[in-house]
Amino acid sequence: MKIFGIDPGSDRTGYGCIESDGSRHRLVVFGTLSGPARATFPEKLDAIHRGLCVLLERHAPDCVAIEDIFYARNVRSALKVGHARGVALLAACEAHVPIAEYAPAEIKRAVVGYGRAEKPQVQHMVKLLLGLDAAPSPHDAADALAVAICHLHQRTGVVADRVRTELPRAAIRSWRDYRP
Amino acid sequence: MKIFGIDPGSDRTGYGCIESDGSRHRLVVFGTLSGPARATFPEKLDAIHRGLCVLLERHAPDCVAIEDIFYARNVRSALKVGHARGVALLAACEAHVPIAEYAPAEIKRAVVGYGRAEKPQVQHMVKLLLGLDAAPSPHDAADALAVAICHLHQRTGVVADRVRTELPRAAIRSWRDYRP
Repeated sequence: MKIFGIDPGSDRTGYGCIESDGSRHRLVVFGTLSGPARATFPEKLDAIHRGLCVLLERHAPDCVAIEDIFYARNVRSALKVGHARGVALLAACEAHVPIAEYAPAEIKRAVVGYGRAEKPQVQHMVKLLLGLDAAPSPHDAADALAVAICHLHQRTGVVADRVRTELPRAAIRSWRDYRP
Repeated sequence: MKIFGIDPGSDRTGYGCIESDGSRHRLVVFGTLSGPARATFPEKLDAIHRGLCVLLERHAPDCVAIEDIFYARNVRSALKVGHARGVALLAACEAHVPIAEYAPAEIKRAVVGYGRAEKPQVQHMVKLLLGLDAAPSPHDAADALAVAICHLHQRTGVVADRVRTELPRAAIRSWRDYRP
């Protein structure tokens, strides 16, 4: 089972793909997508959308997991993240991959075991659950992996036990500098 | 000069295309795009995006004009409209059409001559400026035409004078029931 997690953001969208046989998780790829620094806002959205289309075709996940956002600092930032989330959902829909949405508290509960966990706790558990040497960086990518793990745990009923997984180093590829 | 206006909304996205020689505006097409009633939210976004791609290819406008949203009732509705606006900007970007964004007050000032005009006043002026028998309905389509008119007036310096235009009836085609 291969899950592709997305943490949408208009400046930088995190993604992370993991594979699991039910008890052992394996990191496939993680990174972030963003447009060139001087790109216009629509160009940034286009870069995120095209990047996701390429990645979803390449990794052919069984499911896309994405955070369901209820909260934003204000209307302006809700609008901005909405734009990015819109093109992310579109990419998944175009790739005919089922989409699962999880509330932030659900993700924290599934990954840390506590719905009000802090960001560093989530990052720490992502590191442990995927058997990584360090927490995935930047945090957008870690959040994307967290929502993918959440989906696996929801399906298998596992709640944040320390599943050690093998880590094939070669599989860790960062797309941080990916420009479609 | 052909302008394609978009009024983004996740349930229903209005659009309207007008042509102008500088003084006389001609309605090309207007309508709304929406997914099937029982579609999921991502499927609705996909329907809006695909519909806009088809329309932009068919009408090959010189510019896409879209409202710049600053205000929403709350964060939840800002998120929803953000999703729809994101896929609309993406469609314009993919079609390589320049995008112009206008604040709501600018649109009202350009169409009615007063930045705090009410919705019915805007609809009335759209009807007059395009020489229509009735205000375009639903209001999403009228709003899309208003932002297109705003773009023309901004470019030509016209501010809401009653430009009567010819109205070739055959050109009025509603895409209200359009399902990509």
